[in-house]
Amino acid sequence: MTGAFFTSRWVDVPEWVTEEPPGALPQGFRAAGVACGLKESGSLDLGLMRCDGPDLASAIRFTSSAVVAAPVLVTRDRANAAQIKVVAVNSGNANAATGGRGLDEAARMQGAAAMSSGVGEDAVAVCSTGVIGVQLDGRKVTRGILDASKQLTAEGEEAFARAIMTTDAFDKRASLTVELTGGPVRLTAQAKGAGMIQPRFATMLCFVQTDAKLEAETADLLLGVTVKRSFDRISVDGQLSTNDTVVLQCSGASGVTVAPESEDEVRFGQALDALLRQLGLHIVRDGEGSKRVGRVTVRGGNHGAGEVVARAVANSPLVKAALHGGDPNWGRIAQAIGGALYGSAPIAFDIAIEGVQVAVAGAAARFDEAALAQLVDRDEVDYVIGLPGDGHETEVFFSDLSHEYVTINAEYTT
Amino acid sequence: MTGAFFTSRWVDVPEWVTEEPPGALPQGFRAAGVACGLKESGSLDLGLMRCDGPDLASAIRFTSSAVVAAPVLVTRDRANAAQIKVVAVNSGNANAATGGRGLDEAARMQGAAAMSSGVGEDAVAVCSTGVIGVQLDGRKVTRGILDASKQLTAEGEEAFARAIMTTDAFDKRASLTVELTGGPVRLTAQAKGAGMIQPRFATMLCFVQTDAKLEAETADLLLGVTVKRSFDRISVDGQLSTNDTVVLQCSGASGVTVAPESEDEVRFGQALDALLRQLGLHIVRDGEGSKRVGRVTVRGGNHGAGEVVARAVANSPLVKAALHGGDPNWGRIAQAIGGALYGSAPIAFDIAIEGVQVAVAGAAARFDEAALAQLVDRDEVDYVIGLPGDGHETEVFFSDLSHEYVTINAEYTT
Repeated sequence: MTGAFFTSRWVDVPEWVTEEPPGALPQGFRAAGVACGLKESGSLDLGLMRCDGPDLASAIRFTSSAVVAAPVLVTRDRANAAQIKVVAVNSGNANAATGGRGLDEAARMQGAAAMSSGVGEDAVAVCSTGVIGVQLDGRKVTRGILDASKQLTAEGEEAFARAIMTTDAFDKRASLTVELTGGPVRLTAQAKGAGMIQPRFATMLCFVQTDAKLEAETADLLLGVTVKRSFDRISVDGQLSTNDTVVLQCSGASGVTVAPESEDEVRFGQALDALLRQLGLHIVRDGEGSKRVGRVTVRGGNHGAGEVVARAVANSPLVKAALHGGDPNWGRIAQAIGGALYGSAPIAFDIAIEGVQVAVAGAAARFDEAALAQLVDRDEVDYVIGLPGDGHETEVFFSDLSHEYVTINAEYTT
Repeated sequence: MTGAFFTSRWVDVPEWVTEEPPGALPQGFRAAGVACGLKESGSLDLGLMRCDGPDLASAIRFTSSAVVAAPVLVTRDRANAAQIKVVAVNSGNANAATGGRGLDEAARMQGAAAMSSGVGEDAVAVCSTGVIGVQLDGRKVTRGILDASKQLTAEGEEAFARAIMTTDAFDKRASLTVELTGGPVRLTAQAKGAGMIQPRFATMLCFVQTDAKLEAETADLLLGVTVKRSFDRISVDGQLSTNDTVVLQCSGASGVTVAPESEDEVRFGQALDALLRQLGLHIVRDGEGSKRVGRVTVRGGNHGAGEVVARAVANSPLVKAALHGGDPNWGRIAQAIGGALYGSAPIAFDIAIEGVQVAVAGAAARFDEAALAQLVDRDEVDYVIGLPGDGHETEVFFSDLSHEYVTINAEYTT
């Protein structure tokens, strides 16, 4: 059965994965979302996610930006990534570019969550999302954490998901049942954001919960591989955020074990892969004013050229504007390839759009332009580029460039 | 005296440079522009520039794209860059991504210009600008070259300048008198385009003429240095064209010599520098819908980090949209820095906008937001970034991101 969550043809949903109505957390989890006053609107802005085991394991991935927010530094340096019991998240303020005082506030946030939950500070991950360069009001956050810790319930997933959102146009969450050989497990996730698309707002966040029993090494391995195939492959505007964080928590409460190098590791891994890829695609689709999503696949190339070309095409404003306009404009793809590989000899590239070969060995091919124009007038458009050389295949998912993007990002919001 | 050409505060115009009304070519030059039918509108689309010496010297610079147009390959491989007598340019078709047949057409264009001018093929540079991936109609070009060669006059500069334009909103040309110690010389130039900003249209072209007498090595040295400080430092959308070409021709007809390592080499070089920088800034300002021009200067950094950061800031759609909106949004600059230097340790960057320090050592500084908002509501906005390390200072000029850019580039034009 497929429901409302899996919508992309670029996500392979394994037959052992069933989409459930969102809301119910896996066994062993409780969550809450409260309003602590960071958002002027009074909306939910503080989320708490708690895992009580019995066999806790976790894994984390962070942004690779050189300008990282205080909560990223604090979590990276002061939390045990393999044993995260509590995740505390605020929206409305990114606590980024806030200097030493920002670090103090992030540590205070971690301490408040640890104290109110009765766990050690190293069992708490903290995340922030919102405006950059403004000091976080630690008193509000502390009060919010205390409130939320008293409201934790197995039904708190929706409030948590709402509390982590900033200006997302729609929520990005899913609840899946994964049939393993040892029995069914539950896999849920809440994500927000789309890179750095918001005015002065940062952050892609994603929190994943399961009641399967995993060793921390297995959780780390699977999260690493699936993040590389999902959130690492998306681009709204080529802008890397200061706060991006992905946390996977496993409670083990189902009693079903995902052993290393077992068939169930493959099954669980593929389910996680489908979940994160579709979440990534939903984030791309939520790029402001986004009408279409493109996928560029590059085959061949030497010394990492494939990755460079894929990023250059995905982030070319000309290619993105053509995607928006439903224009199969391969000349722009050709120039993006050339610009990415500047200084090289002439490159004999191939380009196919929606399966139609438009350029072969660096020159125009014959094709039916009207038929191709029809093919690209759809929600998802597929581009395949061939380069000389034997590089691995690489792909990047990207949004189009719209008027709404300019409107939203040209407005002064502070 | 300053006229209509020098408009930017970022260009230092030496006191020995005087702006003249455009139109009159330096001694020893004749030009023409004709309509040969490549542009459906019937506008001028074929330009010829001829230098008759008596002491001919020249220099050329090309795009560094890996996807280069046929005329670039033909000129690079079959012309003597130091002895270019004739420049033949067509607009309306870039002759790029046109394969072997495109190379044949570019060679034919070179041959036609050589034959009709009575010079060797290696004395002819050919340039094309226009649509990518469509075969050039060589018969039209040949006929146009024959027509133009009969119309060459000392007054042909304006027609030549118009013939090289595609969708430029205004012409970009100048005529200067440069007072050298040996007497006055004339320096003129015609430029077009703005990178790859047009729908399926390529190319920045610039042609420079002088009646000063230079050795080819001096011409090459001065053109190389000044291109690096002008056309290499501009970005409309980070897109590198397939056809970019800059040609400097020196006739020597004034009898005034610019000797190597002389005071006049400095004087002439600084005049050429001002000319090309202002032309580059006019090109940025002609980026479709462009309202403001930004300059980002990066000081410090190690291992080329300054260049990477300057490009990342100049090409960030978030920074460009903020420039358009008159928004002094330094959080976006911070994230662009972080994204450019991903994987590094936290970076203690400084940011100043229009002289106001907004971030120090990676954290927000105190400043008057309202006053700064007023300062950035102008035609040119100045950003200065400081990085740890001792890298050289680097700068990039860039346009803003506007609705018109999206409109023009999302329209299907074939």
